[in-house]
Amino acid sequence: MTDLDTFFKPKSVAIIGASRNPKRVGHVILKRMIEIGYPGKLYPVNPKANEILGLKCYPSIEEIPDKVELTVIALRADLTPSALEESAKKGAKAAIVISGGFSEIGNYELEDRLLSIAKNYGIRIIGPNCLGIFDPKNRIDTLFLPKEVIPRPRAGEVSIITQSGSLGSTLLTMIRKEGRGLSKFISYGNRVDVDEGDLISYLAEDDDTKVIAAYIEGVADGRKFMDAIRYASIKKPVVVLKGGRTASGDRAVKSHTGSLAGRSDIFEAAVSQSGGIIVDTLDEFVDVPVALSTQPPMYGDKVAVLTNGGGFGILAVDALEMRGFKVSPPSRDLMRKLKDILPPYYPVGNPTDLTGDSTPEQFLDSGLLIAESGEYDALFLIPLLGVPGMVPEKTESMLIQLVKNSEIPIVATAVPTTPDVEDVLHRMEEKGLPIYPTPERAASSLYGLRQYGKMRSRNSQ
Amino acid sequence: MTDLDTFFKPKSVAIIGASRNPKRVGHVILKRMIEIGYPGKLYPVNPKANEILGLKCYPSIEEIPDKVELTVIALRADLTPSALEESAKKGAKAAIVISGGFSEIGNYELEDRLLSIAKNYGIRIIGPNCLGIFDPKNRIDTLFLPKEVIPRPRAGEVSIITQSGSLGSTLLTMIRKEGRGLSKFISYGNRVDVDEGDLISYLAEDDDTKVIAAYIEGVADGRKFMDAIRYASIKKPVVVLKGGRTASGDRAVKSHTGSLAGRSDIFEAAVSQSGGIIVDTLDEFVDVPVALSTQPPMYGDKVAVLTNGGGFGILAVDALEMRGFKVSPPSRDLMRKLKDILPPYYPVGNPTDLTGDSTPEQFLDSGLLIAESGEYDALFLIPLLGVPGMVPEKTESMLIQLVKNSEIPIVATAVPTTPDVEDVLHRMEEKGLPIYPTPERAASSLYGLRQYGKMRSRNSQ
Repeated sequence: MTDLDTFFKPKSVAIIGASRNPKRVGHVILKRMIEIGYPGKLYPVNPKANEILGLKCYPSIEEIPDKVELTVIALRADLTPSALEESAKKGAKAAIVISGGFSEIGNYELEDRLLSIAKNYGIRIIGPNCLGIFDPKNRIDTLFLPKEVIPRPRAGEVSIITQSGSLGSTLLTMIRKEGRGLSKFISYGNRVDVDEGDLISYLAEDDDTKVIAAYIEGVADGRKFMDAIRYASIKKPVVVLKGGRTASGDRAVKSHTGSLAGRSDIFEAAVSQSGGIIVDTLDEFVDVPVALSTQPPMYGDKVAVLTNGGGFGILAVDALEMRGFKVSPPSRDLMRKLKDILPPYYPVGNPTDLTGDSTPEQFLDSGLLIAESGEYDALFLIPLLGVPGMVPEKTESMLIQLVKNSEIPIVATAVPTTPDVEDVLHRMEEKGLPIYPTPERAASSLYGLRQYGKMRSRNSQ
Repeated sequence: MTDLDTFFKPKSVAIIGASRNPKRVGHVILKRMIEIGYPGKLYPVNPKANEILGLKCYPSIEEIPDKVELTVIALRADLTPSALEESAKKGAKAAIVISGGFSEIGNYELEDRLLSIAKNYGIRIIGPNCLGIFDPKNRIDTLFLPKEVIPRPRAGEVSIITQSGSLGSTLLTMIRKEGRGLSKFISYGNRVDVDEGDLISYLAEDDDTKVIAAYIEGVADGRKFMDAIRYASIKKPVVVLKGGRTASGDRAVKSHTGSLAGRSDIFEAAVSQSGGIIVDTLDEFVDVPVALSTQPPMYGDKVAVLTNGGGFGILAVDALEMRGFKVSPPSRDLMRKLKDILPPYYPVGNPTDLTGDSTPEQFLDSGLLIAESGEYDALFLIPLLGVPGMVPEKTESMLIQLVKNSEIPIVATAVPTTPDVEDVLHRMEEKGLPIYPTPERAASSLYGLRQYGKMRSRNSQ
């Protein structure tokens, strides 16, 4: 019962509650599975239809002529247990129960019936009361949010799990708007069976997932959850945002999901102890994983800032020092080397200011000198593209070359002045340079790399 | 010498150094003045051209047949003093000196010559080494950044002053991308004459400016600056972001502008003492003024959260409590009133969760009950538009009605899921509801309203 692979790589999927009415959840899910190009066999189930969206429709799951590995159930709550049982009898190994109307409105008994069916038949359940799964690489999308309402992000290397569906859909928007990608997105709702611990353990083994990000209001099983984080974080970073960290927030969690969160400070200490990386804001939750998925851990506190905007450089230095980093001047030797390759009127130091006359080559050459000097533990780039010398295509290739040739982590902040510039920034990020719209957000992400570095050093001792 | 009106409402402008070459600063500025529809008389000055962009070109300012009120000088540094002197002789009352190559590269003597000309003739100078002015209402734009490189924001009610040009152009992008507006944008560079104190005093009297936002690395005259803030903040909020708050940041300021910033903690305490509102991040610098320009000050610490996303509501409560706000449950009486008008399964409390079944009417009705109860000092809205009941146009009219009928401040956080939704959110903000993409940013803006409320209470005692 530990293999959750069927949820992500099913050879056949039945959608129980598929509908001809475009407003129904069961219609949207079927449509999304078709749109995303799900490569296996797709069986709509609905006793009142012969065909939906061009696919033959079956009156019941029983009557599907072939095997069914995964069922997606989008029915009224009271009809859901029998559909689950029929799925299990048909041989399905996994079910995503989208249907709501269970423990979240006090209907505990009905939810218990789902659990006992799961136990009796060995079928695994994600849900109920959830959005389910979006996995652009394996081409699964059970989110009942039309693409026109919530456009989906591209494929990427960060996987997200979230109990809250509304927060989940918000995260999809934030990630897409920044041009970022996702490996697996899992909204698991009331987690009658598969919980956050199972999912983190599964994602630990998933080769398509480089970083795990978990939004947690409360956990089903604290020990299992911490064990999963401990296990996973040896293999890859696990980022955790805890909803309900304050007294009133905790009260809100209890009313929202009925989770017993326990004291947040203790929870957060346990997560850190287990190797997880705690973040504090929604921006950090989507920003930090991007740095972790492309950059090495940071093994010290010293940061060099390389900018072509003076004021911007100052704000970066402030943001870095406020995060506890050291932004000290380079050695005389490094100063001399930088001065040797830069025009005489460029201020060299920390920050080094390449000014409005900057070129991509100068970013590359001085970036390499800094990275190779051994004097800094990370490089903070501010390549503003609004000046004539910073030709976008050249900037892209030079900065990616810098990232590829640097052994210390690099993060950047840059401003998407126009849609064209925004595209270039997104492309650079896709190729491995994490880019943030403000210096504070870039500094927070570097802080995430530093946390991961500390954890790794602790574990290797 | 205190009236700076000529900079913003000149009847005639000469552009000295206007050029036929589209890459030259003097060309871009002339083009921008034409594009923005400057309503007065425009005179390009260049001895080597007869006509530029369809306008008759004059060999020198002397030879312009009419009066010239403002000159914009975009020449090599060494040619600038005589151009300034000729402008003054021609009767110009004000000059924006775009030209660089003065104190910022150690050329103090040349800069002193500008100052002595200003003193001899009574002509006022903004600059040198600056972007100058962008004022969409009065249709002035001397920023030498083509619109295609840095698109401009719409007209609005917040005025920004910045010493740093590169940070200034970044701010323009941030403001435009959020659909926000600007009254006046002033990049004043080396401030040989007009300084931050002058500008704040001027904006204090400007009816088109509701909020003043100042990015400050160091000030020319500390006492004058604090006096200006004290004077201005009686009339309108003054928001200050200090670059170089940390030790390394301060070192970077010295190398960037040569400003003697002095100790930042003392500076920030003096700004607060004078009635200014200190912000800490670039996001806050553009977010807080939006709330201040549309909402009343906040006179207590109690906030009610009204959401249609449970997880989002929890993060909002956390963000608010971390900012020192109180998010306590409503009285029994208010609870009863809310339950009376909402479906029985909606969780009522703080947050009150209008769930995925929410309608704009429910936001309006419950928002009014909360606002009129006298139990809260501010209302925090989370109207997610991705659910079927939240019809965009109706949401817009109902929420604006709520804002218009509420005596306590209201801020919102909402997610721009699609370009259409983004347009609706921008329109709502333009009509008076400040909207932020994350709960943390909305909470920070409410914190700005609280700071302003405290300052007002202090002053009225």
